[in-house]
Amino acid sequence: MKVVLHRRYRFSASHRLHQSAAAGWTEEENRRVYGKCAHPYGHGHNYILDVSVSGPVDPATGMITNLPELDGFVEREILAEFDHAYLNEQVAAFRDEVPTAENICRVVFDRLRAYPHARLEAIGIEETGANSFEYTGE
Amino acid sequence: MKVVLHRRYRFSASHRLHQSAAAGWTEEENRRVYGKCAHPYGHGHNYILDVSVSGPVDPATGMITNLPELDGFVEREILAEFDHAYLNEQVAAFRDEVPTAENICRVVFDRLRAYPHARLEAIGIEETGANSFEYTGE
Amino acid sequence: MKVVLHRRYRFSASHRLHQSAAAGWTEEENRRVYGKCAHPYGHGHNYILDVSVSGPVDPATGMITNLPELDGFVEREILAEFDHAYLNEQVAAFRDEVPTAENICRVVFDRLRAYPHARLEAIGIEETGANSFEYTGE
Amino acid sequence: MKVVLHRRYRFSASHRLHQSAAAGWTEEENRRVYGKCAHPYGHGHNYILDVSVSGPVDPATGMITNLPELDGFVEREILAEFDHAYLNEQVAAFRDEVPTAENICRVVFDRLRAYPHARLEAIGIEETGANSFEYTGE
Amino acid sequence: MKVVLHRRYRFSASHRLHQSAAAGWTEEENRRVYGKCAHPYGHGHNYILDVSVSGPVDPATGMITNLPELDGFVEREILAEFDHAYLNEQVAAFRDEVPTAENICRVVFDRLRAYPHARLEAIGIEETGANSFEYTGE
Amino acid sequence: MKVVLHRRYRFSASHRLHQSAAAGWTEEENRRVYGKCAHPYGHGHNYILDVSVSGPVDPATGMITNLPELDGFVEREILAEFDHAYLNEQVAAFRDEVPTAENICRVVFDRLRAYPHARLEAIGIEETGANSFEYTGE
Repeated sequence: MKVVLHRRYRFSASHRLHQSAAAGWTEEENRRVYGKCAHPYGHGHNYILDVSVSGPVDPATGMITNLPELDGFVEREILAEFDHAYLNEQVAAFRDEVPTAENICRVVFDRLRAYPHARLEAIGIEETGANSFEYTGE
Repeated sequence: MKVVLHRRYRFSASHRLHQSAAAGWTEEENRRVYGKCAHPYGHGHNYILDVSVSGPVDPATGMITNLPELDGFVEREILAEFDHAYLNEQVAAFRDEVPTAENICRVVFDRLRAYPHARLEAIGIEETGANSFEYTGE
Repeated sequence: MKVVLHRRYRFSASHRLHQSAAAGWTEEENRRVYGKCAHPYGHGHNYILDVSVSGPVDPATGMITNLPELDGFVEREILAEFDHAYLNEQVAAFRDEVPTAENICRVVFDRLRAYPHARLEAIGIEETGANSFEYTGE
Repeated sequence: MKVVLHRRYRFSASHRLHQSAAAGWTEEENRRVYGKCAHPYGHGHNYILDVSVSGPVDPATGMITNLPELDGFVEREILAEFDHAYLNEQVAAFRDEVPTAENICRVVFDRLRAYPHARLEAIGIEETGANSFEYTGE
Repeated sequence: MKVVLHRRYRFSASHRLHQSAAAGWTEEENRRVYGKCAHPYGHGHNYILDVSVSGPVDPATGMITNLPELDGFVEREILAEFDHAYLNEQVAAFRDEVPTAENICRVVFDRLRAYPHARLEAIGIEETGANSFEYTGE
Repeated sequence: MKVVLHRRYRFSASHRLHQSAAAGWTEEENRRVYGKCAHPYGHGHNYILDVSVSGPVDPATGMITNLPELDGFVEREILAEFDHAYLNEQVAAFRDEVPTAENICRVVFDRLRAYPHARLEAIGIEETGANSFEYTGE
């Protein structure tokens, strides 16, 4: 018997969508592709991170994983670094890669797939109530 | 690397669930099947339309599709016609077909599958906070 | 000791914001004032009705009023008539008066102020997640 | 043409996560595994039950199933017993099995799979806004 | 310049609405007044506690009070005792008084009015998405 | 007859809570008072701005003010400058004053009180789902 757990975390962060001249982009291309998201100082969101893990239900405990263990893992791997941060500067992965929600999904997935007590099924990132992104590792 | 984007739109519309005598239905059958939804003047909802599209993440932009492009497409194809409308009268597809949420899903899916910049995965229609419908084109 | 209870009800209805030629309005004035809300067949919302009543806490029961009594009163006075209705046609008060949220507030307040077991403090009408209206009888 | 309907029900219940000494657990093990959820008198939640059913759209009615029929079935099979109950004592299945959300999913799924008018796809149980569980019968 | 801060906390608890025979109530009166809420083992909710405090904005910090200080106060005074508890048994104030939302408001208000860094304006208790209660100390 | 309209706007922005050495604050004081909110690059939120205006209901239109007029005013006065901005740098008022939610309330109130078609009652700023602030101009 397999159950999927959807666990929801929150972090408040800022980011800027912008490609450098070194990467061959002009300011005009940035404005055309990223619009207001290319503003020079960045802007922010209350991100919602949905972590979906699955596994068999342990007959002894009736659970697929212990929530405090999962919470501690996500706190150490993601939230401690992402919460109240400027992603472009304070998360190494986004120094060379623009922190779109799509890329945040992948970076988070790659870190959380090492969770030892259940199988990581998907990562969801909600930027605003109107758009969210989902990545299953494929 | 494939990511799914869930984008949420809203439209306020009215509809009536009712089959005509020409289609062989009596008023009593309409009441039995559709209950209050068969009331003669229709009633309305704040519909939520969830559009799910997927695609590879463009390494240049870090995105699967540009949100303003998707928004413009959905506005032109759906919202301009459905928002603040009486679906039974003002959307041609519902002249011959009752505008249940199931049928709205299909009509919307058939119009949006032509989106050129990402693959349409699913259409969701939420009528109220207690019921929503999802169609994947199968 | 006085407590205020906020009780939330829902109804799905349609309405049209439009003043008749008999009232001296041209179609153009209707369009200018009401925009899309003047469309000929109306449109709809999932309305949320917030009823706020207050009173002393009964030391015997620990309550200011019994919820099933309030629910029954609101059902009989409002929901039975407003839910799944076209307000302009099926609620007598809106035959001569345009069913804006402001006017709905007043009509509902005038009917519910007769509630015998607590004092009606305010009526709130939420048309969409982005706009709501509140009337306290003044 | 197949559509999935997601229907959302609510029940307020209490539960206690605790394994008896007869099952070989000490109080300390209970505290370590279940934390505050092992408190002696239980605690409660406003559970949200998401029932997902699918089926072909009936060309006559435009629906996959009639909502009042589904609602009546879920009311009789689940809500009448689970709502305002202490799950450990008042739902027989949880006398021998700890009522974790995972186990609630399975018990609910096994009862609702008999719904005669559409295919049960999944059961979701949301305990709080931060964690929900999903079971598809596998 | 005075600002009101609304801070939202959550606790999951169970309660039973029931007056004892010693207080002169029969089982039938309990059922009539409290309905399902009188079930013998209690039931539960995810309560939302809204704490409203006000004060002048400190020109040095730009704040009316420091959130971690308020959070710590509410945690020590309320949440440590109320969260994951059976209110009737584990909160002394509810041994002699039925834990209706109205009474919870008053008990919480009386404890939190001692907050030293801002003025307590109101306590709100939301039991479910459909009903909440507010007490301002009058 | 007076009705209050609550209109909800959204903007995504970043800010940093930090007082400069010129203002006499050490880094340690900043950390003690503002915690993670003092991080050097700022962080962000999806802010919700609640604008409450009141007025008599115009008997001709049934409205207290025209929503598109209010929306245009708020867009020009606030959103065009605040949305997708780093408040500390891009909104002049926050060059000398730390952009706490309390101060944002006041700055927004002072700009919107000039709305010519209804009386500004209150400004609400919600930073996260757990804390919001309200200012009535007093």
